[in-house]
Amino acid sequence: MKIIVQKFGGTSVHTPELREKAALKLKEAYEEGYSPVAVVSAMGRAGAPYATDTLISLAKNEYEHLDSRNLDILMSTGEIISAVIMTQTLRKLGLKAVVVTGWQAGIITDDRFGDATIKRVDTKKILSYLEKGYIVVVAGFQGASEDGEITTLGRGGSDTSAVILGLALEAEYVDIFTDVIGVMTADPRIVPEAHILEGLTYTEAAEIIQQGAKVIHDKAMNIAREYRVPLRVRSLNDEGKGTLICDIRSMSKEGLRLFSQDRTVYSIAFRKGLAQFRVKLNGKKEDNLLMFQLLANKGISIDLINLFPDIVAFVVEEGKALRVKEILEKEGFELTLIYPCAKISLVGSGMADRPGVVADMVEALRESKIEILQTSDSHVTISCLVHAADMEKAIQVLHRKFQLEDIC
Amino acid sequence: MKIIVQKFGGTSVHTPELREKAALKLKEAYEEGYSPVAVVSAMGRAGAPYATDTLISLAKNEYEHLDSRNLDILMSTGEIISAVIMTQTLRKLGLKAVVVTGWQAGIITDDRFGDATIKRVDTKKILSYLEKGYIVVVAGFQGASEDGEITTLGRGGSDTSAVILGLALEAEYVDIFTDVIGVMTADPRIVPEAHILEGLTYTEAAEIIQQGAKVIHDKAMNIAREYRVPLRVRSLNDEGKGTLICDIRSMSKEGLRLFSQDRTVYSIAFRKGLAQFRVKLNGKKEDNLLMFQLLANKGISIDLINLFPDIVAFVVEEGKALRVKEILEKEGFELTLIYPCAKISLVGSGMADRPGVVADMVEALRESKIEILQTSDSHVTISCLVHAADMEKAIQVLHRKFQLEDIC
Repeated sequence: MKIIVQKFGGTSVHTPELREKAALKLKEAYEEGYSPVAVVSAMGRAGAPYATDTLISLAKNEYEHLDSRNLDILMSTGEIISAVIMTQTLRKLGLKAVVVTGWQAGIITDDRFGDATIKRVDTKKILSYLEKGYIVVVAGFQGASEDGEITTLGRGGSDTSAVILGLALEAEYVDIFTDVIGVMTADPRIVPEAHILEGLTYTEAAEIIQQGAKVIHDKAMNIAREYRVPLRVRSLNDEGKGTLICDIRSMSKEGLRLFSQDRTVYSIAFRKGLAQFRVKLNGKKEDNLLMFQLLANKGISIDLINLFPDIVAFVVEEGKALRVKEILEKEGFELTLIYPCAKISLVGSGMADRPGVVADMVEALRESKIEILQTSDSHVTISCLVHAADMEKAIQVLHRKFQLEDIC
Repeated sequence: MKIIVQKFGGTSVHTPELREKAALKLKEAYEEGYSPVAVVSAMGRAGAPYATDTLISLAKNEYEHLDSRNLDILMSTGEIISAVIMTQTLRKLGLKAVVVTGWQAGIITDDRFGDATIKRVDTKKILSYLEKGYIVVVAGFQGASEDGEITTLGRGGSDTSAVILGLALEAEYVDIFTDVIGVMTADPRIVPEAHILEGLTYTEAAEIIQQGAKVIHDKAMNIAREYRVPLRVRSLNDEGKGTLICDIRSMSKEGLRLFSQDRTVYSIAFRKGLAQFRVKLNGKKEDNLLMFQLLANKGISIDLINLFPDIVAFVVEEGKALRVKEILEKEGFELTLIYPCAKISLVGSGMADRPGVVADMVEALRESKIEILQTSDSHVTISCLVHAADMEKAIQVLHRKFQLEDIC
């Protein structure tokens, strides 16, 4: 039995038209000889009738306190509803389909409600349905603990469900349907000439995703990478097979290019909604420790930390900027706050060994009069922080500078 | 046939005592039921009679010009001599052993002399010897192009030979013998209580090595990671099996811990011999581009680049510091140069999500009055630059701060 897992996120199932497109992808896989397993998220964006936040406010209307066990039971219903509706859509197309919840699918987790970790999968039930020719629709984002408590998997939970089911079922592919045709050289909404990267190794894909490309949640990506679960990032609106993320041997078997072999930069990722702090230390070296401890004690994550003897620069999420400002000013720190900012990352390979990449980046941004607020580099990325207003233009000029429209 | 590849570097074969220890490791593997393949580097350190640099100066004594084709033929002899001697050592122990050069081993490369890339391996000859019960000793660091030109593989070439042979022969393990008992929480010469990490995933090991741990060359490590070749980092002077680097499934099968699961920091790596530049930009933003271009045009790699609107900090190898200083001062840049420095990297997982790691690092160094010259962070590392004189102490206090002596 050739098994395929196809995951449909909230934005792929929230209208009847989209659900039919999703069902047709499952049908296509079925007709190609696969035994398909669908994993679906809850329908709809924030505020829609069956969206998670709507359900929570519904429950809290009755009685404010909602404990984590009951919250998980409630939250799990969004995906169950979605899975039932997807099953119905498949049946309308004349296909045999059956729905299973997370625990019925055999997904066993620990008992950390709200952020449970999958421990193992008992695939018996799914396999027996597949053997009878059913398309199995699994409610994503959920499982159950050993003693039968319903749990949810936290952020990116449906991606995790799909990857772990792919692993347990030894699926040939786990297809992640999203709103782009694959992993691209840059976001095509920003760079119209952005090019799909048809094949990426796990290492390459993980880096692009880590730097901000939102095609799959990074927790799920890391599981796929460590356990070698072949992923395809695809779009409902495209006939193609998207980006195949697999190991290097499968890539060469499928005749796919290894971009990292002849390109220093092969993708540009970004993160929006950031704020930069530059804090003067006035020669008092003890200040920097105090500052880091203050932020750590408040649970505030900081990024792009550049610590020098007299000054510290770092970045926080924009939403936390004013709080951080208040915390630091209260202690008498002299600071500059710049926001909104965005971090743009050139992702590639062997950056550290190529002396010209930073020069090229600075040159491209200079020519477009884009101010660089800060930079950071690792062996596979060079990032720069810019004003949010400059972000799109910066991505466009960098895409041109590194000739990513010519990648193929 | 269960095949094992064991690689012995220059420091493992340069005395008769060491060669005998190496031969005993091969014997042990043989007696455990493996068909062993040895890969050996040239004997001896710089200056020794058969070391590469000695051979080159020998040749150049006759006639200064040595073309790259002939240089490769010459350079290949160091490993051939070493392989013959190792074969003799094995025979002295009563073992059946046979030597093969790179091209005899079927290692086919492109024709970039001095830095050739392996294209494929024809394993026929090695396999036929193994089937007859021979231990096969392969000269590392070399191969031949399709049309029979002898080539060498560049830096870390014997590691690459070993990993690629392991891949082609589907070896159960590739053992890399080095002067430490495995990959450690820190260099045991600096931190006596440093602990061996008995199992690491490819991702974890690649990161530690990238940050400076010199247990295997990073090119070979990357091949092992992408093609999933199980490695063991071991010592001739230790009975243990060292650090197993493998995928996450094999780790759990072997009952090994996943350090990244419950440790934010699990290893401390370092790079010595660095120099820090801080260059004032005097408000003229065009200066930074000029600076990067000057260095790029001279082929100088820079690292830890922190670019701000008014100042740029970066790091170069110490050996290039004075040249860089001269280049920049000639153009009128105002700069501070600090050297020698060392970069210390905390390697772990999910750093970006743990607000306290930087605070802990700063606190530990503060308490020991160690000045932090600069920092840098990625999602799996936090690095700090310190004066070289502070390096050992810094590693020691960080090792204690993150309680790495308790890892197990």
